Amino acid sequence: MSKSLIRPLVEGLKAYVPGEQIIVDGLVRLNTNENPYSPAPAVLEKIKECVDGRLRRYPNPGADGLREKLAAMHGCKKENILVGNGSDEVLEMAIRTFVDPLGHGNGASERSASTVQYFWPSYSLYPVLADSAGAVRNPVPLLADFGIPSVSELKSGKRWDFGAALSFVTTPNAPTGRGYKMAELEALCKAQTGVVLLDEAYVEFAEENAMELALRMPNVIVARTFSKAYSLCFQRVGYAVGSEELIGAMHKIRGSYNVNGLGQIAAEATLENLEYYQKNFERVKKTRAEMMRWFAQHGFQAYPSQTNFIFVKPSTLSAREWYLRLREKNILVRWWADEEVKDYLRISIGSEEEMKRFCEESEKILAGNKKTF
Amino acid sequence: MSKSLIRPLVEGLKAYVPGEQIIVDGLVRLNTNENPYSPAPAVLEKIKECVDGRLRRYPNPGADGLREKLAAMHGCKKENILVGNGSDEVLEMAIRTFVDPLGHGNGASERSASTVQYFWPSYSLYPVLADSAGAVRNPVPLLADFGIPSVSELKSGKRWDFGAALSFVTTPNAPTGRGYKMAELEALCKAQTGVVLLDEAYVEFAEENAMELALRMPNVIVARTFSKAYSLCFQRVGYAVGSEELIGAMHKIRGSYNVNGLGQIAAEATLENLEYYQKNFERVKKTRAEMMRWFAQHGFQAYPSQTNFIFVKPSTLSAREWYLRLREKNILVRWWADEEVKDYLRISIGSEEEMKRFCEESEKILAGNKKTF
Repeated sequence: MSKSLIRPLVEGLKAYVPGEQIIVDGLVRLNTNENPYSPAPAVLEKIKECVDGRLRRYPNPGADGLREKLAAMHGCKKENILVGNGSDEVLEMAIRTFVDPLGHGNGASERSASTVQYFWPSYSLYPVLADSAGAVRNPVPLLADFGIPSVSELKSGKRWDFGAALSFVTTPNAPTGRGYKMAELEALCKAQTGVVLLDEAYVEFAEENAMELALRMPNVIVARTFSKAYSLCFQRVGYAVGSEELIGAMHKIRGSYNVNGLGQIAAEATLENLEYYQKNFERVKKTRAEMMRWFAQHGFQAYPSQTNFIFVKPSTLSAREWYLRLREKNILVRWWADEEVKDYLRISIGSEEEMKRFCEESEKILAGNKKTF
Repeated sequence: MSKSLIRPLVEGLKAYVPGEQIIVDGLVRLNTNENPYSPAPAVLEKIKECVDGRLRRYPNPGADGLREKLAAMHGCKKENILVGNGSDEVLEMAIRTFVDPLGHGNGASERSASTVQYFWPSYSLYPVLADSAGAVRNPVPLLADFGIPSVSELKSGKRWDFGAALSFVTTPNAPTGRGYKMAELEALCKAQTGVVLLDEAYVEFAEENAMELALRMPNVIVARTFSKAYSLCFQRVGYAVGSEELIGAMHKIRGSYNVNGLGQIAAEATLENLEYYQKNFERVKKTRAEMMRWFAQHGFQAYPSQTNFIFVKPSTLSAREWYLRLREKNILVRWWADEEVKDYLRISIGSEEEMKRFCEESEKILAGNKKTF
């Protein structure tokens, strides 16, 4: 009986696989791109101060206080901002606002109206969200060096849909860490008649950001998160910036109390302590540069990174073998079996100590391997 | 240009209107059914202890620790439980799991496959969620005393769809506070070929609950929340209980980190301090009984309540006039302009002091009004 209780679409879904969470003493977790440093002490203090009888109350439904502070920071209005339960929810709300499920009968343009488009490889959640929404997935390959094809290349390639209802661009890219220039993103957004969401989850570790495009172009949204740069994964706060029209539409489908209260408080306090975080960004970038040198010295092919992780093709053993060997040493990195990325590891930038441990254990693996062969 | 960027469905949506949140000194808020009492001191202490460097980490993606504790409490398996970002998200996930958007072309059964059904009046979020999902709304009137019609009444009435993909039953009901017997809910669920979600947001204040049905019947889900009975609105934690098959399908469309970490910690700590909350339930019920007497003494027609609020038809002035007069006195209660409920106020049970203030101010309004006429 219950077979028929569930939508056929849902029966066929594959769930998103988050980076594994194993709890073992001394485990080094370099597999989920978390920030190695704690939130600012002032932020922790502020949260603790607020843990009292107010928890019985609903949080502010629109995260108004946070939106006002974000608007001041980005030089826009509160109405240009929407806060989500992590930026994952922002992505999901964008699909629900701009993309019609396939089969709604809009005629010739139906396929485009139902298309969620993205370059590949990029954030592996996009296809999962597209499938959940009954949308058409249109993954288009990045160039061999993980660059974005130019508009004319996309036109001649014919796989890119310039009328797609929603295109996600991860910038800087994940899992490759590659950064993109605002000029090339602008050219792409201009050529696009649908909405482009620039997913800037890692942009604080990059040289450029494209916020200006979201405030200037009617079809562009920028998504940001407090998870990575601001060490707040635990509290699920992300946001979108764009025109009042696009953001206003997203607010219509937003759950009325979608952002938890202590998350709002933590994010607001974060914006009052930006200097602390800016120092952390520099620290992560310094460790990243050191890791790039280590990779070069040890024959790992590492792509220049604008993020808090590095995408590498390891030497001597296969990526899968490295993943397993490191795991035996209680070091977790991310590896995917998918054809396009199976030769690579994605390694988060941990603390100085964590990366030292990674290097030491990797050197042991390399040495042991030399002996064996 | 941007007119066409937004889905026609979204353009036409009306957003849910949450109870207003005015911040004024001395304001008595009896309009959002929040618990008048703080979370347990041990719960607050536990949350504070956890506000540290761990905030940089992702929370447990499936809220596994909390699900295990809930499973132990309800005598089921972790696989029978799904945790949401408040029970509002549980309701939304149920629609996305069980209801096809209209227009997907499933032939003769399409309308039922796309139907979100509920009795009316009930939780005003249901139509909002149904509209957002592109579903067909099927509100069916409750009896004049807000009872649920019997299966044979529903059959002869012909408005109820026994094949609806998803039926929401608020039990005890909101905004009326009326409780239902498990036997009548069971008869309804048995007659239904689609999924029935029993929304027990207020059940801790009631005499009966229907959890047993969710663990026994293949088409029944019970939704619960930590917001109301457990004073945790701020942290957004609700959950669903049902068969592994239904719950497993909901997990497929769940966001990978949908429940914030401090919310999970707070909810787990709550389950270890149930005695504290049980005392609060008794206190709320005692105040509720006192308010029922006051209403009777002052000519307000109050419906017996199984919740932490009372639905009343006030005396002397219209409900709208009462709402406005109380608001002038800094007392907020809930009033809706909709035809079916416009003669009523929904008044949350506040603390003893808050209800004293409500009674005093109401007595002044009644006295002033007598003088005027």
